Amino acid sequence: MKIDKNQLGDINQKEITEHNERFDFLGCTLSKKGKDVNAIIKKLQDFQVAIPSWALGAGGTRFGRFGFQGEPSNLELKIDDVGLIHSLTQTAGAISLHIPWDVPTDYNAIKDIANSHGILFDAVNSNTFQDQKNVKESYKFGSLSNTSKAAREQAVAHNIEVIKIGDKLGSKSLTVWLADGSNFPGQTNFQSALQNTEDSLKDIYKTLPENWKMFIEYKPYEPNFYSTVIQDWGTSFMLANACGNKAYTLVDLGHHLPNTNIEQIVSTLMLKGKLGGFHFNDSKYGDDDLTVGSVKPYALFLIFNALVYGMENNPQNPYPAWMIDASHNIKDPLEDLIQSLEAIQEAHAKALLVDQKLLTEAQLNHDVVKCQEILQDAYRTDVRPLLEKARLNSGGALSPINTYRSLKVRENLIKERGANSVASGL
Amino acid sequence: MKIDKNQLGDINQKEITEHNERFDFLGCTLSKKGKDVNAIIKKLQDFQVAIPSWALGAGGTRFGRFGFQGEPSNLELKIDDVGLIHSLTQTAGAISLHIPWDVPTDYNAIKDIANSHGILFDAVNSNTFQDQKNVKESYKFGSLSNTSKAAREQAVAHNIEVIKIGDKLGSKSLTVWLADGSNFPGQTNFQSALQNTEDSLKDIYKTLPENWKMFIEYKPYEPNFYSTVIQDWGTSFMLANACGNKAYTLVDLGHHLPNTNIEQIVSTLMLKGKLGGFHFNDSKYGDDDLTVGSVKPYALFLIFNALVYGMENNPQNPYPAWMIDASHNIKDPLEDLIQSLEAIQEAHAKALLVDQKLLTEAQLNHDVVKCQEILQDAYRTDVRPLLEKARLNSGGALSPINTYRSLKVRENLIKERGANSVASGL
Amino acid sequence: MKIDKNQLGDINQKEITEHNERFDFLGCTLSKKGKDVNAIIKKLQDFQVAIPSWALGAGGTRFGRFGFQGEPSNLELKIDDVGLIHSLTQTAGAISLHIPWDVPTDYNAIKDIANSHGILFDAVNSNTFQDQKNVKESYKFGSLSNTSKAAREQAVAHNIEVIKIGDKLGSKSLTVWLADGSNFPGQTNFQSALQNTEDSLKDIYKTLPENWKMFIEYKPYEPNFYSTVIQDWGTSFMLANACGNKAYTLVDLGHHLPNTNIEQIVSTLMLKGKLGGFHFNDSKYGDDDLTVGSVKPYALFLIFNALVYGMENNPQNPYPAWMIDASHNIKDPLEDLIQSLEAIQEAHAKALLVDQKLLTEAQLNHDVVKCQEILQDAYRTDVRPLLEKARLNSGGALSPINTYRSLKVRENLIKERGANSVASGL
Amino acid sequence: MKIDKNQLGDINQKEITEHNERFDFLGCTLSKKGKDVNAIIKKLQDFQVAIPSWALGAGGTRFGRFGFQGEPSNLELKIDDVGLIHSLTQTAGAISLHIPWDVPTDYNAIKDIANSHGILFDAVNSNTFQDQKNVKESYKFGSLSNTSKAAREQAVAHNIEVIKIGDKLGSKSLTVWLADGSNFPGQTNFQSALQNTEDSLKDIYKTLPENWKMFIEYKPYEPNFYSTVIQDWGTSFMLANACGNKAYTLVDLGHHLPNTNIEQIVSTLMLKGKLGGFHFNDSKYGDDDLTVGSVKPYALFLIFNALVYGMENNPQNPYPAWMIDASHNIKDPLEDLIQSLEAIQEAHAKALLVDQKLLTEAQLNHDVVKCQEILQDAYRTDVRPLLEKARLNSGGALSPINTYRSLKVRENLIKERGANSVASGL
Repeated sequence: MKIDKNQLGDINQKEITEHNERFDFLGCTLSKKGKDVNAIIKKLQDFQVAIPSWALGAGGTRFGRFGFQGEPSNLELKIDDVGLIHSLTQTAGAISLHIPWDVPTDYNAIKDIANSHGILFDAVNSNTFQDQKNVKESYKFGSLSNTSKAAREQAVAHNIEVIKIGDKLGSKSLTVWLADGSNFPGQTNFQSALQNTEDSLKDIYKTLPENWKMFIEYKPYEPNFYSTVIQDWGTSFMLANACGNKAYTLVDLGHHLPNTNIEQIVSTLMLKGKLGGFHFNDSKYGDDDLTVGSVKPYALFLIFNALVYGMENNPQNPYPAWMIDASHNIKDPLEDLIQSLEAIQEAHAKALLVDQKLLTEAQLNHDVVKCQEILQDAYRTDVRPLLEKARLNSGGALSPINTYRSLKVRENLIKERGANSVASGL
Repeated sequence: MKIDKNQLGDINQKEITEHNERFDFLGCTLSKKGKDVNAIIKKLQDFQVAIPSWALGAGGTRFGRFGFQGEPSNLELKIDDVGLIHSLTQTAGAISLHIPWDVPTDYNAIKDIANSHGILFDAVNSNTFQDQKNVKESYKFGSLSNTSKAAREQAVAHNIEVIKIGDKLGSKSLTVWLADGSNFPGQTNFQSALQNTEDSLKDIYKTLPENWKMFIEYKPYEPNFYSTVIQDWGTSFMLANACGNKAYTLVDLGHHLPNTNIEQIVSTLMLKGKLGGFHFNDSKYGDDDLTVGSVKPYALFLIFNALVYGMENNPQNPYPAWMIDASHNIKDPLEDLIQSLEAIQEAHAKALLVDQKLLTEAQLNHDVVKCQEILQDAYRTDVRPLLEKARLNSGGALSPINTYRSLKVRENLIKERGANSVASGL
Repeated sequence: MKIDKNQLGDINQKEITEHNERFDFLGCTLSKKGKDVNAIIKKLQDFQVAIPSWALGAGGTRFGRFGFQGEPSNLELKIDDVGLIHSLTQTAGAISLHIPWDVPTDYNAIKDIANSHGILFDAVNSNTFQDQKNVKESYKFGSLSNTSKAAREQAVAHNIEVIKIGDKLGSKSLTVWLADGSNFPGQTNFQSALQNTEDSLKDIYKTLPENWKMFIEYKPYEPNFYSTVIQDWGTSFMLANACGNKAYTLVDLGHHLPNTNIEQIVSTLMLKGKLGGFHFNDSKYGDDDLTVGSVKPYALFLIFNALVYGMENNPQNPYPAWMIDASHNIKDPLEDLIQSLEAIQEAHAKALLVDQKLLTEAQLNHDVVKCQEILQDAYRTDVRPLLEKARLNSGGALSPINTYRSLKVRENLIKERGANSVASGL
Repeated sequence: MKIDKNQLGDINQKEITEHNERFDFLGCTLSKKGKDVNAIIKKLQDFQVAIPSWALGAGGTRFGRFGFQGEPSNLELKIDDVGLIHSLTQTAGAISLHIPWDVPTDYNAIKDIANSHGILFDAVNSNTFQDQKNVKESYKFGSLSNTSKAAREQAVAHNIEVIKIGDKLGSKSLTVWLADGSNFPGQTNFQSALQNTEDSLKDIYKTLPENWKMFIEYKPYEPNFYSTVIQDWGTSFMLANACGNKAYTLVDLGHHLPNTNIEQIVSTLMLKGKLGGFHFNDSKYGDDDLTVGSVKPYALFLIFNALVYGMENNPQNPYPAWMIDASHNIKDPLEDLIQSLEAIQEAHAKALLVDQKLLTEAQLNHDVVKCQEILQDAYRTDVRPLLEKARLNSGGALSPINTYRSLKVRENLIKERGANSVASGL
């Protein structure tokens, strides 16, 4: 199924008058405050978030999985799904592949499909946290950090293979998420594990094409429950420095201990020019992988405030790779992703409204009350008209979720793919 | 210093046109959605939050305290401060006294002052977490739970004394916050401590005047760092049931372990008719006692959603007593309280916008995406015009913080009281 | 495979001299301190912990599972595995079945097998957190709490069926662990969910045979990541009270928010006569389900201190049902369970060494330093000789893990069952 | 008061026979396992922990302070107190001064007193978290990170002054604990605050005498409750690298987010040669500053396992500076410190018992069960006889707490100093 521009236009038309009223009123208010509304909308239009190929089917927990109907059973269909989201939101202009779940058989065909949807290939993701069929070495006790040289070499070779696949598709970066660690005190030697990891990463790094980047993800726990080799940003940052200029830290919102101040980590990494990638999701307890903005929208705003600041003030930091990394256990995955994209752009828009000049002034005056007022003034603004306008400008839907439903997208997918179609992957 | 209605009117006048535009636009939008805007504004006007007498001076931490100027050095001046806040916000119509820091010498005079500001006396608070001068028994090892009968009796007697003082002022409830617990494993016998506490509470409860309530607060840790006798809502609820119909649980937002779902606790207590009081503040790490809404405004909204639901659907639960319980370490305490009140009313207003009928319907359909859309639609609305209108209707300021500053309230207080005036109390 | 008493005897014989020396020295030391060593050993011998039928195969995480060889593929083989553990440790004298994974086909045959190993049938466990094949109603949105009456009735009927199965095997209790909850704010109405759960539990409770108990488990999160209907001991306790005298709270060590003081919860429940069952495991981050005692052995000791105290001083509380509830992702499940049993008995033995009389005295004197010394004196004692003696007295192995390895139990199981045998269940 | 060697000898004599039995039995057992018992005891004797000058009086919380009697009211008496602890434990051979609370008036006199007790001067601590009397600039909004250049310069100058004072006493290191941070989102610019801190630290570093070290402490929160400039080891490590070879990270056990794997941080820092100092305490909830080993003794053992491993295998890391940093709210501070020292040496001794060769072998074999057995075998050993022997060899007390009490040390101090003597400082 593909969404037709005309269909979208017709549906948008029904709400356009109300949208215009909302937008005019807000735009006027913001202009009076000195905001360049068009510049803000332009930034919203330019902001594109990659959808990971594994996010298009229902997820699960260790206690089981409740399936969803009409899931995409191969890479082509997954790209189609991202295309559907993108045509509605105009914010999902990229897909992030997971190898070996998504190895293309015909590269040109895959690229053509993506092209037809206006979808790029973002970072490629390796998988050394599971044993694939017919592999020689098991990752049960680690991959890049394994005490076994053979296991490490297999994991390095896999990452190099992933780079090659990504290169053929036009990807420009590799994301390494390492589940390596231990479940019990004493199980591993922390220093050997770290040293092995550094050596393995360097081996992968050496094969990186010239204009590529390597993103090193960190996570404090899960699936290992005593220690994780790359447990925090400090470890990732240290490893990225050891690898070289093209290695960066990747921040995933769910990969932090309780109460971590993530926006401060973002600021530090951007100051040092080492924030390479960013994974969006939300959570209350651990790495819950919930819809972005569904639990802590103010924290998301504060993080965007740090990101927007960094993008404007830290030329030493490259433009980061954005991706949603959530799990859709009980919602329609496409609706869930649309809600995530909306929450991301909302936080983004509000961060763009922060009056940085006034804020700096208040900070210098130690006027704490005023600092808070400035952030809250931006956050309390209802920015939905700006998001609508940005989508409208780019040819998307005024109301993506409503449009998705009125177009009966899921029903059509089930008709096309069958009720029991299951997404390939985990 | 007292704020003159005419002064307020003049300042409001300057912003009234813009306010009217904002309010009209929002009111119109909400009316189209079927909301009764006047009813919502009425509810905002009726909502009054008590200010604790100890919140009017600068707080501190165990590492020290940075003073603030022009603090109120006696009870009369504290009531004046609440009066100032109330005249600006029209939401702070009560004061909550702490005994022995605020024992009146002349009850009638105190009541007259409060009356002149339109301030009521809310719950009175006992203090058995510190040793006052010249007391016989120390609370170093507990008060109501102490193994020493003499210490328990002294603590019970103090609480009864507090009730008497409150009664003379027109208070109708006693809040018991018990710091009792232990710092080290083995230090206390959990069962004896709990039993002693239950017995002591019953002794206090017996003396409660007919139309009074007793609020039992809970807290997992601090100032004791291994165990606290009343560690959670379950313990408080059990004790309240043991005492009788007039005993209730009091929820303080900062008194929970990391990641606790507080709104669920609120719902359970209201279902069982046992939510008596509520203390507002905000926090990121522990009982940080920060400005309400400054860190987790969405959580505050979700809690208000539960409170509003309970107030409308649970006649078995009495109308709760509201209080701000924050500490003002680096802000002007009065400005801090104004920001807290604003955040409370913002969350309140947004909760009032939740379409409960649609929500119930979506819940019954297991339409999780829709449920989220309904909550987020309410939350994303910029409700500030409603708050302005409510204040305006009640004779308050359109912009309390700005008005506070343009009236140079703090400067005047310093002039009247001196720069080095220190709030009585802790 | 079955372990022969003679084999055990031979292996024990090699270490008996050293054991005797260790035991004599410790026994002598303890006797001098006034301890009745034989009474302690008797208590250790009497202490039996149920093994859940799902713990005999390798577990996994949502990121995958690394299999183990020689797993028991049916109920008969699972009972054999428990028999192996019991013959070595003499502490695993019961099995706890999970329905529908372990429905017997021939009850008498199953009972005979269990009998031959000296194994009893402990609490039976229902499963309403997954959809079984060919069921009519899905539990995707809850079971006992579901807004759908049909789903609730199916879940109630399943629990009643589980009771019947258990009754035929000689079980005397039902454990209800409810995964019900929500992933997103607004998804459920907390009050309806709680009320539905209470009503459903009462329906199950009504069918409970006279001498049975119902255990209500609680858990703050996972597999739901925003709210869980029975989120804490307070909720479970409230529901147990609503059901009646035969309903109790069940405590699982991993089911608590960070930093919860579990021993205090245990003490409160025993004081109120409502601690019915107990699940052992260990964890660092969440419900990690690690080997008992592998991460926080002192916390385990403190909990046992509360349990031993309660068993000796709270006749109002029934003797609790003990079970290990861990997941064995990277260890041989049988070795893992043996390590857990050893850790449980170690904590138990140390708790039995606490001088309760001296402790009470020190508590009354507020001698905090002394209280700590008394607990630490017990904890610092190397009690392994007592555990050895208890096992020896009961016909077990001096060194269970070493004996398991020298008897090549796993190798034999693989030979008998094949390398690719997978445990039935999740 | 000073403790006489003869007094100690007499008291020890009464227990010597039993000690000898215990020691002989354990020594024999360990020797059979191939342990060099004398070498272990030598290491215990050599291990010396500094006592901070502020730990000798009763601490408190923000809710108040319950005093203790006979506290040392000046620096001379504080050194005497450390002398008392050292003579009993032979493990407290150093004092760590806090400036400006402990500025000596007569350096030679102070050094003579310390000398007479066998006490060295360890790291000196600066204080920029409080405003001292008569200072020009306030630290209310930060010190080394302050946006105000004058405040930063004052803080830098203070640190340089502290180095000079320490230098005169023979100290060789400066500990910088920075409370700088913010209480509210937006209050500070993370990047400026970090940059200012780096620049200030470099200014201090430049004045460091040749053979000195600078320790940079980190802490996630408190006294600031939204952000802390040096929030984690990664930030401290980055700053230490920016300063140079003589700058190191200091780890304080209480300064971590919930569930942090501290032993892994220790291992990483030692691998990189950057672990400079270590502060001991214990906690359950936050930076509770409880007696070492009173809550999580196994975690302490695992940390010591990492420390012992690093000291033996990481010549790139200097020998760390050890200090106790606890608060004594309800215990006699001297007894509390003695309990802490005992717990430290216990964990140290157990870590020395870990069979590193066997452990490495098991790690290489991925024998997770065996790895755990090896650690637990060491941990479960009752090492108290080793600690006694070490103290005995060095001229200390067999039972420090009992001896402290039988010598009526506190009673004597009260007699000498008066009941109301209060420790100088906070």
